[in-house]
Amino acid sequence: MINKITIVFFLLISCISKNNVKENVEEVFSIVIHGGAGTMSRNTMTEEIKKQYIDKLDEAVSAGYRILKNGGSSQEAVEKTIIIMEDSPLFNAGKGAVLNYEGNVELDASFMNGKSLNAGAISGSSSIKNPISAAISVMKNSPHVMLSGAGADEFANNQKLVLQPNSYFIINRRLNSLKSAKSKENPSNNLEQKIGTVGCVALDKYGNISAGTSTGGMTNKRWNRIGDVPIIGSGTYANNKTCGVSTTGWGEFFIRSVAAYDISALMEYKGLTVSEASKIVIHEKIAKLGGNGGVIALDVKGNVAMEMNTEGMYRAHMDSRGNKKIKIFRED
Amino acid sequence: MINKITIVFFLLISCISKNNVKENVEEVFSIVIHGGAGTMSRNTMTEEIKKQYIDKLDEAVSAGYRILKNGGSSQEAVEKTIIIMEDSPLFNAGKGAVLNYEGNVELDASFMNGKSLNAGAISGSSSIKNPISAAISVMKNSPHVMLSGAGADEFANNQKLVLQPNSYFIINRRLNSLKSAKSKENPSNNLEQKIGTVGCVALDKYGNISAGTSTGGMTNKRWNRIGDVPIIGSGTYANNKTCGVSTTGWGEFFIRSVAAYDISALMEYKGLTVSEASKIVIHEKIAKLGGNGGVIALDVKGNVAMEMNTEGMYRAHMDSRGNKKIKIFRED
Repeated sequence: MINKITIVFFLLISCISKNNVKENVEEVFSIVIHGGAGTMSRNTMTEEIKKQYIDKLDEAVSAGYRILKNGGSSQEAVEKTIIIMEDSPLFNAGKGAVLNYEGNVELDASFMNGKSLNAGAISGSSSIKNPISAAISVMKNSPHVMLSGAGADEFANNQKLVLQPNSYFIINRRLNSLKSAKSKENPSNNLEQKIGTVGCVALDKYGNISAGTSTGGMTNKRWNRIGDVPIIGSGTYANNKTCGVSTTGWGEFFIRSVAAYDISALMEYKGLTVSEASKIVIHEKIAKLGGNGGVIALDVKGNVAMEMNTEGMYRAHMDSRGNKKIKIFRED
Repeated sequence: MINKITIVFFLLISCISKNNVKENVEEVFSIVIHGGAGTMSRNTMTEEIKKQYIDKLDEAVSAGYRILKNGGSSQEAVEKTIIIMEDSPLFNAGKGAVLNYEGNVELDASFMNGKSLNAGAISGSSSIKNPISAAISVMKNSPHVMLSGAGADEFANNQKLVLQPNSYFIINRRLNSLKSAKSKENPSNNLEQKIGTVGCVALDKYGNISAGTSTGGMTNKRWNRIGDVPIIGSGTYANNKTCGVSTTGWGEFFIRSVAAYDISALMEYKGLTVSEASKIVIHEKIAKLGGNGGVIALDVKGNVAMEMNTEGMYRAHMDSRGNKKIKIFRED
């Protein structure tokens, strides 16, 4: 009788302590997104347009948050979140991407997995509905990291990804931007026409960071120009040892600065925080070269950085600690 | 009379001291090149073939050395030196480049100026005779850093660069390599078919570093694959603050490692020498991911690193101190 009571007692204690352990382990997860940095102004942005962006950012970041909360991987969260922004005509990625010199859409995207350091990218696609999924597919199902042009489209087709005619991506707003860019003497100096991109960095409950970025590039771009977005180290980088990064802005400067990897290197080699490293890259390195743009980054503890040297950056963040931020202007 | 003697005396002293100053200022310049890292073997390489490589490496490095010695810029030295290797069928760049899945040549190249941090690159060209010149032209004459495919060819044509039909680049040896790659179950695992590239890093008398890389990429590559060579930060990087770098090897691993910039970051942020940083990237970082290849690098004092984790790397070095090395195998 005493033995039975003792056993029941120990089982009870064991059960209680197990529950306590479970409660004490904080399941940290975190997600941050951007929808492009640029020269947006409070004076010219109507409340209606502002609401459209806020609502879409909310929808995208919440979708990724739910995946992470339910135990999904950071890779899945990044892919699904970016798809929502690619499918929205509000952003310069997927449907609604900017137009090149010939009046066509050419899409770039990249993805990196911070655990395996595997990566995939596509550039110059004229038909892949969701370039972020193609980038992940290149990583998973090809011996290569980066595919381009017609080859990227052919690969996506082989992978049974959804393709669309170029007309699917083209919206009136971008036709007008192209017209305006062509009417100017030096279109490359118009900041508004070379920025705007979507990106997402996520940390899942298992401590794995993923990062992805997707864009139509720069209005009026020529000669199959490739910007920073599909370049691992410039537009996208992820490493569980340090952080995940997605950039947006005048891509040429982010390539020359190797911006995304530089944030990781400043953390790994100089012991900076993700916030300090992001500030240095955006406000010192990129700015010194004359470049403009922004960056989102996330470290392995879920700390977030959202830095820009432009007037604003569409951005949002949610995490397991109950933080939720959705912002547009720099001073927000 | 005394006044005249005094003047002559002072003029003499002044002349002697000027000559002394001139003699004491060491005009440091340095150049290092590679012609690809790979699985070359002493047993299978005939003396005749070995001599061909040694002679061509000598011709290329000497041409760059003369430019630097005569006060030319590191940019000119890198361009002219790489052109000699692109024009030779011995290397996987320009004439003699490897063939893609469809049996065509697709050429990649990049260049970076360590003073301005300007850069240019082309990828997937099927007609540019000297891709390194096109990369420099993108840097100088376009608002972009990286152009690709037919757009890169169109840009080069606009710039009056020499174009050639694809047949100009194709040699029998590469046709056989493609046949052999296609006959194997998993061609991507054959190291010999994915490496071999040319590169050059130079430091001129004015303290400016330039770096450039040029390649045909990987035998049997598909879907307009882009390797590390045209990617600033992966295949090529230059910064007067730290070093210039050109890589060669299994490109996918150099992209995922952001290899070229990582050498610079290890020097800038951790205070490592160019030799220490190159060793870490090749023998620790690249090797840990399972990648193979090599790197050449040069710091602002003219110190050189030539590291590889393969059996050999065609490489040569000359500098203002009278050093001259031409090597093939790792233990050379």
